[in-house]
Parts: sequence; structure tokens; C-alpha cells
Amino acid sequence: MIYLTQSVHRNAQIYPNQLATVCQDRSHTWTELKARIGSLAAGLKGMGIQDNDRLAILSMNSDRYLEYYFAVPWAGACVVPLNIRWSAKENLYSLKDAGARVLFVDDTFMPLVPALKEALDHVIYIGDNECPEGMVDYEGLIRDNEPMADTYRHDTDLAGIFYTGGTTGFPKGVMLTHISIWTSSISLVPLMEMSNKSSYLHAAPMFHLADEAVLQAGMLSGSTHYFIPSFTPQGVVDTLSKYKITHVVLVPVMIQMTVAHLKANPADLSSLEFILYGASPISESALVSAMHTFKGTKFAQGYGQTELSPLATMLGPEYHTTTGPYAGKLKSAGRAIGCVEVRISDEEGNTVEQGSVGEIAVRGPNAMVGYWNKPEETATSMRNGWIHTGDAGYMDEEGFVFLVDRVKDMIVSGGENVYSAETENAVENHPAVAQAVVVGIPHEKWGEQVHAEVILHPGQEATAEDIIAECGKHIANYKCPRSVSFRTEPFPLSGAGKILKRDVRAPYWEGQERMIS
Amino acid sequence: MIYLTQSVHRNAQIYPNQLATVCQDRSHTWTELKARIGSLAAGLKGMGIQDNDRLAILSMNSDRYLEYYFAVPWAGACVVPLNIRWSAKENLYSLKDAGARVLFVDDTFMPLVPALKEALDHVIYIGDNECPEGMVDYEGLIRDNEPMADTYRHDTDLAGIFYTGGTTGFPKGVMLTHISIWTSSISLVPLMEMSNKSSYLHAAPMFHLADEAVLQAGMLSGSTHYFIPSFTPQGVVDTLSKYKITHVVLVPVMIQMTVAHLKANPADLSSLEFILYGASPISESALVSAMHTFKGTKFAQGYGQTELSPLATMLGPEYHTTTGPYAGKLKSAGRAIGCVEVRISDEEGNTVEQGSVGEIAVRGPNAMVGYWNKPEETATSMRNGWIHTGDAGYMDEEGFVFLVDRVKDMIVSGGENVYSAETENAVENHPAVAQAVVVGIPHEKWGEQVHAEVILHPGQEATAEDIIAECGKHIANYKCPRSVSFRTEPFPLSGAGKILKRDVRAPYWEGQERMIS
Repeated sequence: MIYLTQSVHRNAQIYPNQLATVCQDRSHTWTELKARIGSLAAGLKGMGIQDNDRLAILSMNSDRYLEYYFAVPWAGACVVPLNIRWSAKENLYSLKDAGARVLFVDDTFMPLVPALKEALDHVIYIGDNECPEGMVDYEGLIRDNEPMADTYRHDTDLAGIFYTGGTTGFPKGVMLTHISIWTSSISLVPLMEMSNKSSYLHAAPMFHLADEAVLQAGMLSGSTHYFIPSFTPQGVVDTLSKYKITHVVLVPVMIQMTVAHLKANPADLSSLEFILYGASPISESALVSAMHTFKGTKFAQGYGQTELSPLATMLGPEYHTTTGPYAGKLKSAGRAIGCVEVRISDEEGNTVEQGSVGEIAVRGPNAMVGYWNKPEETATSMRNGWIHTGDAGYMDEEGFVFLVDRVKDMIVSGGENVYSAETENAVENHPAVAQAVVVGIPHEKWGEQVHAEVILHPGQEATAEDIIAECGKHIANYKCPRSVSFRTEPFPLSGAGKILKRDVRAPYWEGQERMIS
Repeated sequence: MIYLTQSVHRNAQIYPNQLATVCQDRSHTWTELKARIGSLAAGLKGMGIQDNDRLAILSMNSDRYLEYYFAVPWAGACVVPLNIRWSAKENLYSLKDAGARVLFVDDTFMPLVPALKEALDHVIYIGDNECPEGMVDYEGLIRDNEPMADTYRHDTDLAGIFYTGGTTGFPKGVMLTHISIWTSSISLVPLMEMSNKSSYLHAAPMFHLADEAVLQAGMLSGSTHYFIPSFTPQGVVDTLSKYKITHVVLVPVMIQMTVAHLKANPADLSSLEFILYGASPISESALVSAMHTFKGTKFAQGYGQTELSPLATMLGPEYHTTTGPYAGKLKSAGRAIGCVEVRISDEEGNTVEQGSVGEIAVRGPNAMVGYWNKPEETATSMRNGWIHTGDAGYMDEEGFVFLVDRVKDMIVSGGENVYSAETENAVENHPAVAQAVVVGIPHEKWGEQVHAEVILHPGQEATAEDIIAECGKHIANYKCPRSVSFRTEPFPLSGAGKILKRDVRAPYWEGQERMIS
């Protein structure tokens, strides 16, 4: 049987006195961690938790978040990690949708509890202060209970429900089993070169599968886990340096901020062996700059989505080069990881010709079993055993996948497909442009018109005409924006830090329906 | 879904023009290999193969053996790799037991076909000469059929039946699923540090799980596969050197023979990164000698059995040292691999105290689902989800497992447990002794008496008294043999090259029953 708590048992047996977790001034060996997980599970059982119950968490990163990930299945239940960037309304929806009546919450999210309370029977306080009245004290649960025997949830048992709004609409609960998460994670171990000598810094948010998968890979490897509550450039740099961390996961914007920070505040990060990045696109120039800053550190890009626990492809360290025969691969999202097959599908589900753009489809044991209580959405995403990612891309002759756009962000203008991502890259060539989002807006004759919303660098100026002219130097005329609007407030972001193009697009479509939706 | 043919699809997609197999003067890229497997599967279907049929093979190592391992599930069927060291009678039993009515056979085993024919509908000839009359031509099947679509057998579908007599009696068919073999193999990838840059030499027999698991790990990594028909020191050394092979699996006797060969015939084996050894015990002196001979090559020991696809524990390269804090671990079989839990069990199934001897029990997704048509034997081996290995051992405080004996080879004499393996090591300290086997023989008063059968080095002499006296210098008196007999013919070996102690013991027990059996 495949069960996620197996790594807890194994690590306690073979690395009993090695460090499992280090968080602020707390640290635990594997022996201690196993005991804490067993006691916490016993505490949960004592609260009346039944098999298959869903227990939610809303918290910044900490060792307790990791303990939650294992104590919950140990007690026979399922995790529901809530999105720390979502509003109370979205998380209340998730709680109710999942039927989760227990919430673990830390100090940061205490203010949201009143708005969520109606859905809850119990709130478990995992903060660092005294437990507030009416809540259950996390450390008390551990202190007051002897470790219980593992219930050994396994195989196709539900491990958790992971809510994703992604960039496409209402939150959907992705159901992942023990097999889904385990197969994804064990495939990651060799790709990330993790072992019991490794140390992993949880800098990306732990509710997100990007961190969760590496958490599990670290558990399977016996690596030591370090935590910072949330990403700050200073926090990452200080922690990497202080503890001689070997592995970290960063999303592109975190990489860029860390590189900028290091330019002003140099630090010795020579212990860092491996940076995995992903979850949103990174520009080649930002990546190359990071590769220069982190000399001697290997980079790998992961591409996937929650529905795949989360990895589909990886671009390994050997392809992070701008010279030699592999130079062109840096623009790619890499190739199928060990446990999956990837193909490019047309609208009828047939595999397109090599090099043609279509929807990226993925099959593997890491795939979700479906969306919680959403059979229609499940049927849309999972067809003939393949997960349809909603991402448009093509594959080269060696299986490298190149993303071109979200399928829903593609613009169909005068019968031509325009990939918003490609136009954005062209617009961002204009030196005054800090950030651009390109969307299709209604056009009576062409169906859709290519439109750019642009944020300029502070103190710089440019006209719509300037920007369109610059764009024309880089891409075909029909791909260039026909209109440009300027904004000063930041673009709306999803919980995973992705720009929500649907929100940028929505005002233009009020009262009308897009053909692609 | 988890399916063993996934690696064929993935490798053809991402390494289309890299070498998949090299055997004699034949070589195939991954694109070619996938096409051959699809065509062979189509040929099998054309012969009337149905889902779940069992198709056997009796062959030395070759690229066609690898193709068989994937074409059979591709066509919807199950593999039955026969033991090349067994008699026709044993293999006929296996064929009939499995209900396998198709046999793949190479030139070496053609002479056995008449004795097996009664069980068979079809014999597929995979040799290098013209296809004999009345047999199906393997290359013809591939040539004459277009590749068929994969049937995608997966998850708990039966992947194969692997016959093991082990050292304990009649052949039993171990049923392994796609999940069993896949989880074992993917756990091996990081431990053996395999990648698409690796090359693996099939030197150990391919019917055996020791090779089969690394075959699958190599497939998951995209490594290139090289083959020699069977082990010879010269063949291994020449092939390792000629193709700059990086990975090989050798059983202890192969290592010793290769080391001896290299002393007389030095060769440049600097490309060799990794030797995995196992399947039978190795003396520390032989291992240390091999480590000196293969400087710069990493050694790892695997311990397991067919019932575990086959790995339970591994002793990694860092513990292959005779100095420093890890020095004592060299006598160990290592620790639980990534996907399993290991414990030491008493006769009631309870875990013994740390350091105490008991039966090694293992749980994991790599475990068999049972013995084919043998519910009683299955119930004896699998209890409460744990595979009971029949091996006696203990575990230290860091989870290292130390084997002391097969449970059935332990001798109970005067109420004391004597581990035959320990006594053998002591007996082999006598300089005249080439090899010793220690068994329990009937004794009216003590139940069993410790008895040694000994083969002396050519031209050397020793008396029973000499040997017992030497033994007494190393181990407690009650563990020393009370009687010694001398033999000149080699000890009987199992298909995996293990000494069959039950055959050594049997003549002494004629007409009597052992308590331990």
C-alpha cells in the first residue's frame, strides 16, 4: 500500500536523532516529530474526528503546518489547506463546499476567524501566543495525548481537497489521493537530487502544491525542513545563509526580488544546491540574471497544476544554459517527469502534429481523481484518462513542451489565434513598460481585438502609438495590440501569484459573452 | 494510473534518438524500441493472446528479453520469466502451474523445448539462427505487424508471475502487479543515481527480480541497456570497458570472480559509477577487496526477495567504508528503501525489542499480492499486511538491518538458537576450508546438533577436530559444530545461486520431521 505517513515511520526508524524540522526557536528530531504527529492525531480523535472528515488549515508557513499534513491522515482524515491570499468569502465557500468543520489557524489569520465561524465546529489555534478562549490549543492537544497508532490511510483514500480558483473562475476542490501525491513526490526525489543530507526551506506558501510536493519529496528523502512564515527577500536570504540550506522552491517574482535584494546586500549562499521555480512564467532575462547571481546553484523549472499534484514537466539544470546545443531549451517548460505522459491535444482530443499548438494534456498516477462535488467540471478536465490543463502549448521533437498561453487567454481576432503571452513579451520590450497584460476585448467585425493594459515604470512616459510601434518590431502585425490603456494600480493576482486575466478582461465584456470561456 | 509501459512511451517521446538497447551487433533507439514493442504485441494478439494470459520466457540475457518484458503487458498479458538454472521438470511445473501456453525461447534453451512441449500451444523463437520448423519467428512477428495501441495494463493488474523456489521448497509463483514493480523501481532511481546519461549492463540473469527491478529503474531514467548472454568475468570486464558502462548489478560470487580476473588481466573500468550487489551474503573481506579493485566506483547492497519486487533494504555507498563512524555498518544489509517499512517480528507478529533477533517483516506497495493459486502459503507469508521474509535478523538504533540467518536454517540445539551463517563464518576461518555449510541434524537429547559440511582447498588437509578447535577461537562453544563431514562435489545451488541448505540437510533427516520447517 502507498501511504503518505510512511515517511514519518521510516524517518523515525532510520534517522531517529537527525533534525526533522527547524522553525524559529523550535526544532524536532524525527523521533520527536513522529511522537508529536501521533499525539496530535490522538487529540483530533478525542475531539470526535471521524474517518474521511475534512480538516482545514489557514496559516503561514511553520513546522506545525507540516505536522498538520501528517497528523490529519494519521487520524484517518483529509487535509484542506486554504489559500492564504483568498478573501474570507472565498475561504468560507471552500470550507462549506468541503464540509470542513475544523480549522487550524495561526496568529496571522485570527482576524478572519469570525467571518468563517459559521462553518466551523472547532478552531485549533496553532499560533505562538496564549490560546484564545473558545479555541482548542494545538500544543495542548499534543501535550495531553499519548501517540495513537496510525490509521494508515492509503492508496485511493482521499488525502486532501486542494482548492484552486486558478485563473479561470470559482474555487474548485481538487481531490488528491495518497497515490496522487506520493507518485508525484517520489518522482521529484531524483530530479531534485534530495537526500537525508539535504535541507529544504519552505519559503513558498505551504497550502500550495508546489511546496507540498517538495515537502513530501523531502520527507521521502529524510531531508531537514526549515520554515519562514512567508516570503521576504531578507527572510529567504538570511535563512538560506544561516542554516546552509541546500534546496528551495521560489516562484519567479520571488526569484526576481531575491536577486534584487542580493545586489544591494550580498550574502554567502554557496550552500544552496538547487532552486526549483515555477507556478508562473519567468522572462528569460530574469532567469539569466538569477543564474548569474546564484552561480553554482542548479535551477530547474517545474510546470503543472494542482490537478497533477502538481507536476507535469520539468526543465532540468542541464538545460539552464544560454550557450551550446541546449541553449534554445531555456524557453521551454521541460519534459514529462518520471511518472507521466504528456501530449498536445486538439479540441477533439486527438494529438496534434509535432510543433503545432494545442492544449497540453497529461496522464499519470499523480492526477487528481476529480473535483469535489463537481462532476461536470471533472468531466471537462478529465477526458479518456487525460487531464486537460487549459494551457496552450506545443512540443518539439525531443518532447520539450513550450507554453504559449492559457487556452482561455488566447485571442481569436479576425480568424487568427493570438497568444496573449507572446504579445505581452513584445509589449514589454518597450523600455518604459514595467508590466503588460494583453487580453481580447469585443470587436464587432473581428470577434476580438487585441488590447493591452500597461503599467509604466515610475517617471517614464509612452503613448499607445509608441508601444504598438515597438511591438511591431518583434511580432507580426496581427498580433500587435490595436488599443492600449494605462493603469497605475497593480494587476489583480490569484492566490498563487498569477495575474488574473479574467478580471482584467471582465469589464470589457460586461453584458456580452466570450466564445472562449 | 501506474503502468510499466509508460516508460516506453515517455522515452520514445523525450529521448527519441538516444540508444535504448545495445546487444551484440544490434542496437535500437527509443523510437525503434517502442515500434518493435508495439509490433511484437500486435503479433502476439494475432496469435490469439487474450487479456491476462501468461506468456513465459526461458532465455539468456538479450535485448529481446527486455522487449518481451514490455510487449507482453502492451498486448494485455502477464510475464512468466522462467529460471534458467532450473531443470526442465521444475520449469514444466511452473508453466503448468501458471497456465502459460506460450514460451519465448532462445538458442541456449532449445534443447529443453521437447520436455516442455506438452504444456505449450506456441513456442516463439528468439534465437539468432533461422527459426526452427513448428516455432514462431520472433523477428517475423515484429516485421509482419504494424504497432498496435498499448492496452495500458495498470495498477493492480497482474504484471507477472515470478517463480521462486528460493531455499525453501517447491516453486511458488509470486504475483506482482504493475504497482508492485513500479514502486520498487522508482524508489531505486535516486538510490542508484541513474539518469538518461547512465548505461546499465544486464549481467545478472534477467529472469531474476534483482535485474528486473534495475531494468525498470533504467527504463524510468532513460538509461541505455547493454546485455551479455550470461555472466563471465571476461565478458563483464570487456563489455564494461568497451561501452564505458556506468551501472551494473552483480551477485557476490560474480564480484569475486571479476576481482580475481582483473588481478590477472587489468582493464580500465573507470567509467563504472555504481555496483549494486545482493541476492546472497558476501564476506567482508571479499567486499573490501572489491572496493579496493573498483576504486572510484560506488557500492550498494540490496536485500530483499522476489515477494518484494525485490527490495526491502539498501546499504548505500557512504556505508561502504572500513574506517570512521560508519565502519560497523558494512556488515549490515542497510535500511528500508524509500517506499517500505521494515520491522523485526517475533513468532506472534509483535515487534521485538531493538537489537533482538527475529524475523524480518516488510510492508510496502512493492509487496506481492500473493502466491499464484497458493492461498495457504500466501497466508503464511503475508500477515496483517506484512511480508514475512523468512530471514532472521536484528535492527540497530538507526534502523540498519543485520541478517543472521534464514529462519529455517537456524539450529535449535539444547534450547539455544544457533545461526548457521555465523557458524559458517567461524568455520571458514580455518585456512584449509574453502567453503562450509552448517546445518542442524537430528540429536536425540538436544533436538538438533550443529553439523558442518566442508569443502577443503585443493591439496590442503584438516581434521574435524582441527576445524572445531579453530571455530572455538571465534564463537561460543555451543555454536561450534559437534561433527564435521568432508565433501568434494560443490554444494547444490538454487536458481539465484544460493546454496540449498535444505538439500544438504535432507539426507540427515530422512524419515524424521524437523520442528522448524
